[in-house]
Amino acid sequence: MKVDGRHYRTIWVAADGWTVEIIDQTQLPHDFAIARLASLADAAEAIRAMKVRGAPLIGATAAYGLCLALREDPSDEALDRACAALLATRPTAVNLRWALDDMRDHLRNRRREERVAAAYARAAAICDDDVATCAAIGRHGLPLIEQAWERAGRRRPVNVLTHCNAGWLATVDWGTALAPVYRAHDQGVPVHVWVDETRPRNQGAALTAWELGRHGVPHTVIVDNAGGHLMQRGQVDLCIVGTDRTTARGDVCNKIGTYLKALAAHDNGVPFYVGLPHSSIDWTIEDGAAIPIEERDPAEVATVAGLDGDGRRRAVSIAPAGSRAANYAFDVTPARLITALITERGTAPASREGLMSLYPERAGRR
Amino acid sequence: MKVDGRHYRTIWVAADGWTVEIIDQTQLPHDFAIARLASLADAAEAIRAMKVRGAPLIGATAAYGLCLALREDPSDEALDRACAALLATRPTAVNLRWALDDMRDHLRNRRREERVAAAYARAAAICDDDVATCAAIGRHGLPLIEQAWERAGRRRPVNVLTHCNAGWLATVDWGTALAPVYRAHDQGVPVHVWVDETRPRNQGAALTAWELGRHGVPHTVIVDNAGGHLMQRGQVDLCIVGTDRTTARGDVCNKIGTYLKALAAHDNGVPFYVGLPHSSIDWTIEDGAAIPIEERDPAEVATVAGLDGDGRRRAVSIAPAGSRAANYAFDVTPARLITALITERGTAPASREGLMSLYPERAGRR
Repeated sequence: MKVDGRHYRTIWVAADGWTVEIIDQTQLPHDFAIARLASLADAAEAIRAMKVRGAPLIGATAAYGLCLALREDPSDEALDRACAALLATRPTAVNLRWALDDMRDHLRNRRREERVAAAYARAAAICDDDVATCAAIGRHGLPLIEQAWERAGRRRPVNVLTHCNAGWLATVDWGTALAPVYRAHDQGVPVHVWVDETRPRNQGAALTAWELGRHGVPHTVIVDNAGGHLMQRGQVDLCIVGTDRTTARGDVCNKIGTYLKALAAHDNGVPFYVGLPHSSIDWTIEDGAAIPIEERDPAEVATVAGLDGDGRRRAVSIAPAGSRAANYAFDVTPARLITALITERGTAPASREGLMSLYPERAGRR
Repeated sequence: MKVDGRHYRTIWVAADGWTVEIIDQTQLPHDFAIARLASLADAAEAIRAMKVRGAPLIGATAAYGLCLALREDPSDEALDRACAALLATRPTAVNLRWALDDMRDHLRNRRREERVAAAYARAAAICDDDVATCAAIGRHGLPLIEQAWERAGRRRPVNVLTHCNAGWLATVDWGTALAPVYRAHDQGVPVHVWVDETRPRNQGAALTAWELGRHGVPHTVIVDNAGGHLMQRGQVDLCIVGTDRTTARGDVCNKIGTYLKALAAHDNGVPFYVGLPHSSIDWTIEDGAAIPIEERDPAEVATVAGLDGDGRRRAVSIAPAGSRAANYAFDVTPARLITALITERGTAPASREGLMSLYPERAGRR
């Protein structure tokens, strides 16, 4: 999408033809900084430190991380070690495993001298596929926003609530949850987004608000506590969120707090949609309760990072020195609370049958 | 309750016999500072700037604000002006109106030279009544925690989730929601509190965690997004929150985000209790949707205040410079989501019938 008029992706191969450049998302929303990845360690650290985040972008970064590893050592052993190192960076994101498996399948039986070029080509294809996938999610989600506009008599903007960041910064371009929003905006359907700030890391306030603002989409930042009230008062037409992992029956594991918004949407008759690429579906799990939930550093809860009055980046402590904090990164929204899934193949109910209607080739497989 | 072993109330008349001292809650959790109120303007500003907050403590502070006003001018006109000035400080808190009406009724027909002494006596009585009320809420709520301990086979602490601060800092002593927790802790029932940080003002992280810690009650600070996940995983035995205003049918207007926790509790079969004094009941309103919801400064959403690494109090900006923010202070939890109300007279269902069973003298009145 656009940053003040110029088009960007979130990851690309630099002009030197081999290093990889990313938007360092830990610097947003205050600084728009490009970071350079020149080794497997750089790529793993970018994922671990959340310079890149969002399931599809993590997958794309891992794919390029393998490219960088193979430049140093194209052996099978190095390939396996690199896959293991990258897989360990974030335990919950299923795209990470998906991208690494795809890369490994593609590279394993090649001659060593072909591997680096093949890896870069495959990583580029993964990125292009992700752009095509997200663009398709946008096309399929667009009618949901258009219909909401019709229901509002075309008299006011459509109010969309989203949680965390499942925009273009979470993918290579377009985003998942936000792809329909960008599509609607670009086509002249007036849309306004309620942006949950999304504690503890504030990806909503820092990333979603930033990318919507840079592209020119009207939006308002709210605390995570506010969405239920807005839905009670009729100020939300629909919710769209992303997902880190979707089970075979349509349960959705996404940023902590998603479940609370789904409950409020259900209680108020507000449609609750999840935008996702096929790569976020974990066909091996039915029940979302079986998904391991990552616990992150409690300091993310006890402190908040931002820009001080002097323009310096700082973390401030918000809790008493002696108090314990706990930091659960994700929760599971049961399929029963989800109006529909929006994938690159279209929309379907959040159920095994719904997913099978979109992915019939999975029938009979696990 | 205790601060590191010494007993405090949240408001008291100073040793000079006329100025009023409060704990300046805007300095917590980092500094334990006492502020001195010497005029109506001081009292109004303390309420407006949230040096004092919490419905009962706002009422008590307003009562002392009238005392300070009458010291300067004991006329009927001054009394009316002072009431109007204090009432305007916080539009949602019903205790404010209740305390001012009580004071005015008590003072109106007295001779001017009697008014100051009568006002101080009445304000002291309001404070003592509040302490007795909260202590009674604690006694009536205690069995709910004891029962949860029995259900857990007395093998582990009872996990209580609370939102915002309805502890002793919100009242004169004991608290409303937390009174049963303190009572249980003091009687040797092991209890652990999940403390919602409660954005945007972080009263949970700043105040609830501080007062629990100072009194010695085990607790863990979590982001507001986390409670639903904890309830899904069986890690919450019961929720107890306070209320800024309770309608005649038992709808509860409390800090923004309370409704989301009540939805999660309902969805997971976790009991959801509200602790309240009679003074928070607004018998003139049935439907919580009719309660005006205060909108506060959007800067509270776009920035977070805390202590930096150098021990200096700072606000940091967490949103992009160009993004709009909105700040709704309260939401309404419908009575259907509330397991029971805990008042100074006992527990009852959140319904007109339930409230009438506790306050039969209201029958037939509005």
